[in-house]
Amino acid sequence: MKILFYSPHSDDAPAWIASLTRKLHGADVRLWTPGDVAPADYAIVWRPPAELLAPPRGLRAVFVLGAGVDALLAHERRSPGMLPPDVPLVRLEDTGMAEQMAEYAVHAALRYMRRFDEYELAQRQSAGDAPWRALEPHPRESFHVGVLGLGALGAHVAKTLAALGLPVRGYSRTPKAIAAVATFAGQGEFDAFLGGLKLLINLLPSTPETDSILNARTFSHLEPQAYLVNLARGAHLVERDLIDALNAGRLAAATLDVFTQEPLPADHPFWRMPRVTITPHISALTLREPAVEQIARKIEALVRGETISGIVDRLRGY
Amino acid sequence: MKILFYSPHSDDAPAWIASLTRKLHGADVRLWTPGDVAPADYAIVWRPPAELLAPPRGLRAVFVLGAGVDALLAHERRSPGMLPPDVPLVRLEDTGMAEQMAEYAVHAALRYMRRFDEYELAQRQSAGDAPWRALEPHPRESFHVGVLGLGALGAHVAKTLAALGLPVRGYSRTPKAIAAVATFAGQGEFDAFLGGLKLLINLLPSTPETDSILNARTFSHLEPQAYLVNLARGAHLVERDLIDALNAGRLAAATLDVFTQEPLPADHPFWRMPRVTITPHISALTLREPAVEQIARKIEALVRGETISGIVDRLRGY
Repeated sequence: MKILFYSPHSDDAPAWIASLTRKLHGADVRLWTPGDVAPADYAIVWRPPAELLAPPRGLRAVFVLGAGVDALLAHERRSPGMLPPDVPLVRLEDTGMAEQMAEYAVHAALRYMRRFDEYELAQRQSAGDAPWRALEPHPRESFHVGVLGLGALGAHVAKTLAALGLPVRGYSRTPKAIAAVATFAGQGEFDAFLGGLKLLINLLPSTPETDSILNARTFSHLEPQAYLVNLARGAHLVERDLIDALNAGRLAAATLDVFTQEPLPADHPFWRMPRVTITPHISALTLREPAVEQIARKIEALVRGETISGIVDRLRGY
Repeated sequence: MKILFYSPHSDDAPAWIASLTRKLHGADVRLWTPGDVAPADYAIVWRPPAELLAPPRGLRAVFVLGAGVDALLAHERRSPGMLPPDVPLVRLEDTGMAEQMAEYAVHAALRYMRRFDEYELAQRQSAGDAPWRALEPHPRESFHVGVLGLGALGAHVAKTLAALGLPVRGYSRTPKAIAAVATFAGQGEFDAFLGGLKLLINLLPSTPETDSILNARTFSHLEPQAYLVNLARGAHLVERDLIDALNAGRLAAATLDVFTQEPLPADHPFWRMPRVTITPHISALTLREPAVEQIARKIEALVRGETISGIVDRLRGY
């Protein structure tokens, strides 16, 4: 069995290849390098260049090392035919990512509800005088948190926040039921979902329908001085609208893990906005061991002729 | 029924008095002012001056508007006889404080485990260059959190952290059992409790035995580069030892809500230490409505000749 591996984070590649070789006893796992057009049975990739997928290699499946396949599908829309249409495209299903997302979301929710961000700013910005001043916390019972997207990640985030006693709502394309979470579905219920939210957390897949969903109109339906946390994709957010909403005081603060351009350029205004908190796309890291384990299990299932989960519906986009 | 009220936060006094009068139909609730030596049946106080409690007023109980009575007992040690010895001293039992403490502790634990504090520092300190760099998070399974003190507050904090999947230990004077928490009791088990902890959270009552418990010796038993969160009393911490441990890299960072002197003086080095996070004694605010409700219920019980909970053991100190 021949396997192609590719990730732009080339430092990690040897460890991934060693782990895949170990888990798929006897497989020939090679790092793809430009010019390699040799046959392969499976490709295991993160943000691959078009040259990797284009040649007819006899691929039986392409595994993506993440939960989102938007970059690959956008690639395909720009260069149709790059992705062999009959080859299943398989995304990672939760391998510790949901827990990491929940940690991130809980931290951000408590930070804003208890106004720890403002204490930090006061401490760091105090030049000589000591800002010893208690701030009224947002009352927990009216700190309504909305989770956009109720897939494996969003549902776990919503459940974890609800277990902490916060009032939580969830929004998805198709109806979902989650204990202790008020759920809304479809465009028709979007504004009702937004109304009265103090914190909006985005965990949607990035598709042509969801891109730019975090915009001035959406912000206008939230509570005054609401908070935004974007954990999904930079394409979801109209960055200009966020800057305007923060400057106008329409939104109080935002925590962003993803951006239209990554790394976020050094001259981007977000870096210097005191109420914008930036993390470098780390809300949920792909953990090597569980990811390799999941992919190896699925390859073995495909070899036995069984069906597997996690195959992307290319029309739907996730 | 005559009731004396006193709090140094005089802004709030009218609201407390109005609420107490409403809940204790017909009670005569008055704000204590210097020179008032008239009789009263009950005193409801926070950090009262000695003159309030000293005169023989016929008090049947003194209610303290907080969970800790250390200030009052220290007062009594310095001026023996100030607190009438046969009058029950009653502390507030959980009235939303445990939940607030858990919010604070969960926020701090996730912040350190995921290294959000370092991302924030990098963003705020970057002068011109953009610090887009992922940091390896502390693995959850080895991020051992120890909670010092397993009263109503500490036990709830320990349970909440354990429910999030963190490995949690608890330490108390006398043995306690809490599901999913490894508990240790008494001086003989203190070092075993500390060994391997990555995060130490203090929620002990302040007594002569526990004061200065957060010292260089204690820090030396923790994991290298461990974290400290002090939510109890400033007297628990040897501030000089913390500064030395942070400067030596023995501890990585600390979050402090309480201090030997409050407000923390403007020239205190903590304000300017990048790995010290300061909040102004807000980890758990006394919420007026539930506190008034609890005290009114207890006064009614005493009037009926019933026993009540929350009476302080003055020898034990809590």
